[in-house]
Amino acid sequence: MSDDFLLLNPGPVPITDAVREAMDAPMVSHRSAEFEAVYERAQDGLEYVFEHSTPQEETTSAGGTGLVLNGTATMGMEAAVANLTDAENEVVALVNGKFGRRFKRIAERYARVTPVEVTWGEAFDLETVAEHVTDDTDLVTMVHNETSTGILNPVAEIGEIATEHDARFVVDGVTSIGGDVFRIDDWNVDIAITDSQKALAAPPGISALYVADRAVEHLDGERAPFYADLEWHLRKAADHQTPFTSAVPLFRALAVAVEEIEAEGMDRRIGRHRRQAAAFRAGFAAMGLDDFPTLDDASERSNTVTAIELPESVRENPEEFFDAVAERNVSISGGQAHLDGEIFRVSNMGQLTDEQVLRGVETVGEALADVGYDADPAAGRDAARTEL
Amino acid sequence: MSDDFLLLNPGPVPITDAVREAMDAPMVSHRSAEFEAVYERAQDGLEYVFEHSTPQEETTSAGGTGLVLNGTATMGMEAAVANLTDAENEVVALVNGKFGRRFKRIAERYARVTPVEVTWGEAFDLETVAEHVTDDTDLVTMVHNETSTGILNPVAEIGEIATEHDARFVVDGVTSIGGDVFRIDDWNVDIAITDSQKALAAPPGISALYVADRAVEHLDGERAPFYADLEWHLRKAADHQTPFTSAVPLFRALAVAVEEIEAEGMDRRIGRHRRQAAAFRAGFAAMGLDDFPTLDDASERSNTVTAIELPESVRENPEEFFDAVAERNVSISGGQAHLDGEIFRVSNMGQLTDEQVLRGVETVGEALADVGYDADPAAGRDAARTEL
Repeated sequence: MSDDFLLLNPGPVPITDAVREAMDAPMVSHRSAEFEAVYERAQDGLEYVFEHSTPQEETTSAGGTGLVLNGTATMGMEAAVANLTDAENEVVALVNGKFGRRFKRIAERYARVTPVEVTWGEAFDLETVAEHVTDDTDLVTMVHNETSTGILNPVAEIGEIATEHDARFVVDGVTSIGGDVFRIDDWNVDIAITDSQKALAAPPGISALYVADRAVEHLDGERAPFYADLEWHLRKAADHQTPFTSAVPLFRALAVAVEEIEAEGMDRRIGRHRRQAAAFRAGFAAMGLDDFPTLDDASERSNTVTAIELPESVRENPEEFFDAVAERNVSISGGQAHLDGEIFRVSNMGQLTDEQVLRGVETVGEALADVGYDADPAAGRDAARTEL
Repeated sequence: MSDDFLLLNPGPVPITDAVREAMDAPMVSHRSAEFEAVYERAQDGLEYVFEHSTPQEETTSAGGTGLVLNGTATMGMEAAVANLTDAENEVVALVNGKFGRRFKRIAERYARVTPVEVTWGEAFDLETVAEHVTDDTDLVTMVHNETSTGILNPVAEIGEIATEHDARFVVDGVTSIGGDVFRIDDWNVDIAITDSQKALAAPPGISALYVADRAVEHLDGERAPFYADLEWHLRKAADHQTPFTSAVPLFRALAVAVEEIEAEGMDRRIGRHRRQAAAFRAGFAAMGLDDFPTLDDASERSNTVTAIELPESVRENPEEFFDAVAERNVSISGGQAHLDGEIFRVSNMGQLTDEQVLRGVETVGEALADVGYDADPAAGRDAARTEL
């Protein structure tokens, strides 16, 4: 039914009935064997996703551990930084959007920070990054898929720079992992972070980390927040336990969600995400809209989050446009921070149907027409369909 | 049906169908008006519980804010300590069980700590506490209902000592708030912490704080973990928003759970908890078992968690006893840390029926008989019934 509520926000994303229903079971203790079995399923599925996110599904890690944190990805980002640095350390934080900035702000609480900042939505210049990372650098942080601007940043290239200087490398893969390629070892990633409610398509509230074995010797849980002590989390995870109480219903749902990903296979899942993102881009372009991100050789458009500039005429009163979308029972996102009123964003993370993608394109076109912009929703839909 | 699974652990506790079903709804964004409405309901209900937990249900606070944190109570304990102290500060941490020790360990990451420790399960000596709290003390931490030992600690008396020296006072009310009396202002509490899955009877994964208005001027979110910056949480909470992504299903369930508490009324709820705890104690005593906590004038037995010494003969092989309980489809807890194998613990938090309390007593008696201890389950049940 085209009237169903359609959630196109870049998280939380729609969840399947099976995932939702997994929450709906009698409560058990987080210290029970039943819970350990749930956590083991979640870890196994996560390790599949973290290690096999390529079109060939080959393993990309020589070894590591998938952990679930009882907090969202911001907690995961903080756990990674805090366990790997202290006040004497230097962090190079790459910023070209809201989540890159978040990494920088987190790092400022734990270490000395050298930011490499470019205008939100623009690509990093690799030479500039190479100039800032030195042998004094202990940690480099970056966002793979910058959710705030729809750009896919060059993790491979930055990972190489970090490794040349023996710096740890921590990557926010929150809106890529589970929907696009991610290569742990080839990209020299020490800790990767994702969130439950993005491309994993589980309910929000918890997050997941992959800690590569090579990173373990660099961890020091004592300098991290007590709640985010990764040495403790790893020690307990070896027995499929968590250090503290855990969100039993959300862990149950996550276990089902990652099993659904494994059943689909990362090859098909990545293909589907790329196809649907291309359809969104083609559809919006056919209605005369411009992509927000500015790319260069090393950067690409996101395959999970599409960010589009609002036409000048719409920017005068963007709320009217967003209201016209909402009236059609579709939920999309605006820009964050200073991009508020300048862009809109849609997600194709999780398991949208092609029909839902087409409805998203058409709805945006209709809403634009409502507010006086000369858009042809049918043309948008047709262009999107050619990519599907 | 007596064969139904009966969860008597001191958290998570059973949840009602309405609470469980609240999780089972289509996903919405944590930035939507729908979510703000959910959070407002949760805050309103929490403020009722934090402020009106007396038999008369009168307000016990001149003003404060109920916050939900997307993390369990350990995160709440850390948030309270970290936002109120820095490395120059002194924390007096009261320890007579596992959760008091946890407060101490958390405080050690942020400040200088002067512990006041007594054997787990024993009462604090007020004079000793008074000797340790001085004008140099910035913060006093304590646990109200020590879940690990079943003792109810004297918050009122310690709050008075803290206030005499103008020290902040942070109280873990995790297993008391929602089930027993809690008085914010009379007890001089600056921040109170509780967890969703204890006496609030919601699913685990999130926690709640009450920040008294008088504490706000002492907060400094910059020195806390980024994820636990209480100034930021308070700023967003004013608009019923959260700083980061939140566990939408768990917030929905918590909103229903606190509304159920308000519908029952704290007077009746406290009365029920006290009655059922008395029944547990009477039932176990009638089977010749000894309470674990050692009380004095200022301390009491818990009204939400009952801790009982395992008989000497059972301690030789405690797993046999716990297996015999589990075979009857009842889940109880053993002792934590060094108390493992020495005690067992049952909870009456939430909304157990009287029949479930009786089944708990009888099941423990039957399991004891199975492992050769001379217990009379029927006598235990009869004694428990007299209290109900």
